[in-house]
Amino acid sequence: MLETVFSLRQQANQLFDQLREGSVDSARGGVTRDTYGPGEQFAHELMAHAARELGLELRTDHVLNTYMTWPGRDRSKPAIVIGSHLDSVPAGGNYDGAAGVVAGLIAISALQQQGFSPERDITVMGIRAEESMWFGYSYVGSRGALGMLKPEALDKRRIDTGRTLADHLSSAGGDPEAVRRGDAFLKPDNIAAFLELHIEQAPSMAYDGHAIAIGKAIPGNFRYPKVQIRGEYGHVGLPRRFRRDAALAGADLFTALDRIWSQWDSAGRPMACTIGEFHTDPDRHGLTIVSGDFSFSLDVRAYDPADLHELEAAFLEEVRATEARRGVSIRLGARASAPVAKADPTLSTQLEDCARAMGLPAPGLLSPASHDAAAFCAAGVPYGFIFVRNRNGSHHPDEHMDIDDFLKATAVLSTWLKKHT
Amino acid sequence: MLETVFSLRQQANQLFDQLREGSVDSARGGVTRDTYGPGEQFAHELMAHAARELGLELRTDHVLNTYMTWPGRDRSKPAIVIGSHLDSVPAGGNYDGAAGVVAGLIAISALQQQGFSPERDITVMGIRAEESMWFGYSYVGSRGALGMLKPEALDKRRIDTGRTLADHLSSAGGDPEAVRRGDAFLKPDNIAAFLELHIEQAPSMAYDGHAIAIGKAIPGNFRYPKVQIRGEYGHVGLPRRFRRDAALAGADLFTALDRIWSQWDSAGRPMACTIGEFHTDPDRHGLTIVSGDFSFSLDVRAYDPADLHELEAAFLEEVRATEARRGVSIRLGARASAPVAKADPTLSTQLEDCARAMGLPAPGLLSPASHDAAAFCAAGVPYGFIFVRNRNGSHHPDEHMDIDDFLKATAVLSTWLKKHT
Repeated sequence: MLETVFSLRQQANQLFDQLREGSVDSARGGVTRDTYGPGEQFAHELMAHAARELGLELRTDHVLNTYMTWPGRDRSKPAIVIGSHLDSVPAGGNYDGAAGVVAGLIAISALQQQGFSPERDITVMGIRAEESMWFGYSYVGSRGALGMLKPEALDKRRIDTGRTLADHLSSAGGDPEAVRRGDAFLKPDNIAAFLELHIEQAPSMAYDGHAIAIGKAIPGNFRYPKVQIRGEYGHVGLPRRFRRDAALAGADLFTALDRIWSQWDSAGRPMACTIGEFHTDPDRHGLTIVSGDFSFSLDVRAYDPADLHELEAAFLEEVRATEARRGVSIRLGARASAPVAKADPTLSTQLEDCARAMGLPAPGLLSPASHDAAAFCAAGVPYGFIFVRNRNGSHHPDEHMDIDDFLKATAVLSTWLKKHT
Repeated sequence: MLETVFSLRQQANQLFDQLREGSVDSARGGVTRDTYGPGEQFAHELMAHAARELGLELRTDHVLNTYMTWPGRDRSKPAIVIGSHLDSVPAGGNYDGAAGVVAGLIAISALQQQGFSPERDITVMGIRAEESMWFGYSYVGSRGALGMLKPEALDKRRIDTGRTLADHLSSAGGDPEAVRRGDAFLKPDNIAAFLELHIEQAPSMAYDGHAIAIGKAIPGNFRYPKVQIRGEYGHVGLPRRFRRDAALAGADLFTALDRIWSQWDSAGRPMACTIGEFHTDPDRHGLTIVSGDFSFSLDVRAYDPADLHELEAAFLEEVRATEARRGVSIRLGARASAPVAKADPTLSTQLEDCARAMGLPAPGLLSPASHDAAAFCAAGVPYGFIFVRNRNGSHHPDEHMDIDDFLKATAVLSTWLKKHT
């Protein structure tokens, strides 16, 4: 048994090392596994290679997700799908996404070494294009597999190449026409459960001393990617009474939203609010110019549709109050939103039970990030979610995962598979 | 007499029209008279041409200011210098600066038509490079003339061309070496008074119903052209307790400074605070990224050295409080400052008396903008200042000056010249 654990640790370390070596970003640090580019492609090929060594069946779909299946005794039964994404942000960490795919393979390897024979198919899914920053679009791979990717996504351009998703997908060997037709490679009725393992993107678990946690929900959000405040450009000598300062109006709004978040936080109501872009116009701003234009992005997330509704109403009220107070006009621009995706309560309880049986505390966690599991949830597939501790947060080279934490989470996964497939 | 006024109005209108036609910015609107570039050069040549028609003596100095002198009967006596700048901001208005030079020429023309003969020299000075946004440096022309331009200014690069001031100055025919030596073309002892006429950069006078006003002081300021806030980049999923949001820290500071200004305003204490550049890093910001970097510029001005000291202390206290509250570090970067420049009380009273004698109300005005008169004040030259109403504010194409208002202000100037030269 000890040898098995030791060999699994070696397998996992080796896979993570190979993954890092093949996608290292020597210019910026960390790894870059670019969506529908060489970095992501390498990761899919590496996982397929490992799956072949485990004797798994390999398939790909029209958006190039990789399916690695350990056939069950009764192949007509709905399958278990274990999946996460294999792309990364530019100069990201090695584990965000990929850990969930490696975990699926290691769990199967563990069960194989124990002589376990699954009743139903267990499929490890290497998902494409989860990181929305490449194409400004979420869940391209998982939505594509489920026939839920809107054709408009094909026209989105990758932030660095300027080429469309359709173009990138074709070049990589995929089929944009199948996306346009709405082809579904996965049918929700054929999936008993979707399980995702993912490192936490924040250091909450490290802070609270938990190696693993059970994800209870993926937040819904509303987004205004480009809100524009129009005031009036003015001379540095413009007295206060005449100013219509767009940047000051932006500052008002940011501090108002932060005040709301602070109140929700104190009341124990989970939410998050991010204003990531927040800027005067670089072509017109200057040391001695009162700003006439200001732009910002907004992403607000919460775990309950009613909370999202309340927060959006509060934001719109602040917008109106700011317009009146600062003499500016505010154009909200495009709005996007995503529904709340709650984990399946039965699956969550089962995962907690598996952890408890191993003597591992596995508290429930509300993590404000987005995950492919949300796309499966939207398609009606029940999902369970395991988080692994990450003391440095995600989306940068300093991301950190302890291999022991990873093996604990993977053990919960394999224990669950043994009991429920 | 009526014919004289009519011909002066025609002269002024014609000069302003020619000025506009020769420096119109057809791409962006308004005029662009670029510092040490073709736009400014045109304005100097046009004024020199007009001065020649009035029989004035023409000279230029090593930084290419234009001196247009009506010789007095006793040329040994300290002269009266009437001046303002002939450059403009990009896509600025036709009157900011140039009105003061045209006023000097029209006042001399009026006095010539009346057969007046001045006892001392009256010099109209077309000043170079007042608009600090071109080279990020103030009063290049007036300081250069007075031998007070620091050699470091020569290394400043023009915001659009990227070429240094030394290079631009040489190309235009000036002498950077004379600047390095600290040559003074004007000696304060040889100047009895400096008089500047300028349109107001704000609509205060229009709002209060005054065609002209007497400027009582040019504010001193302290500036931090590039304050940098360093927080930590984070994932959109980062919980509140872990965030070190640099943009939010910037918003805090802006609203705090605005709160201080609001309090001073209510207490009737004049000041102004401008944060013109206020932005996340365009290379790294994004919809789903908590900002790790934020930059802003700051210009705070007031009319009393003690007030400036109090305001700077308050700013630095807010910086420290923000660092502590938001877990960020704030690097102030370079600091610049300018002393308060009070107008000469005797000259101010004389100008008010001249206006009163013409039945014109001419209230005192504290306008928060900067003017070349401040450079003369720093050299020990007493100055007087006349503002002309501008209902739309300055530094943009919609700047507005009524020719009647201009002629009233010019009449105050010529009346003063008649009485005091």
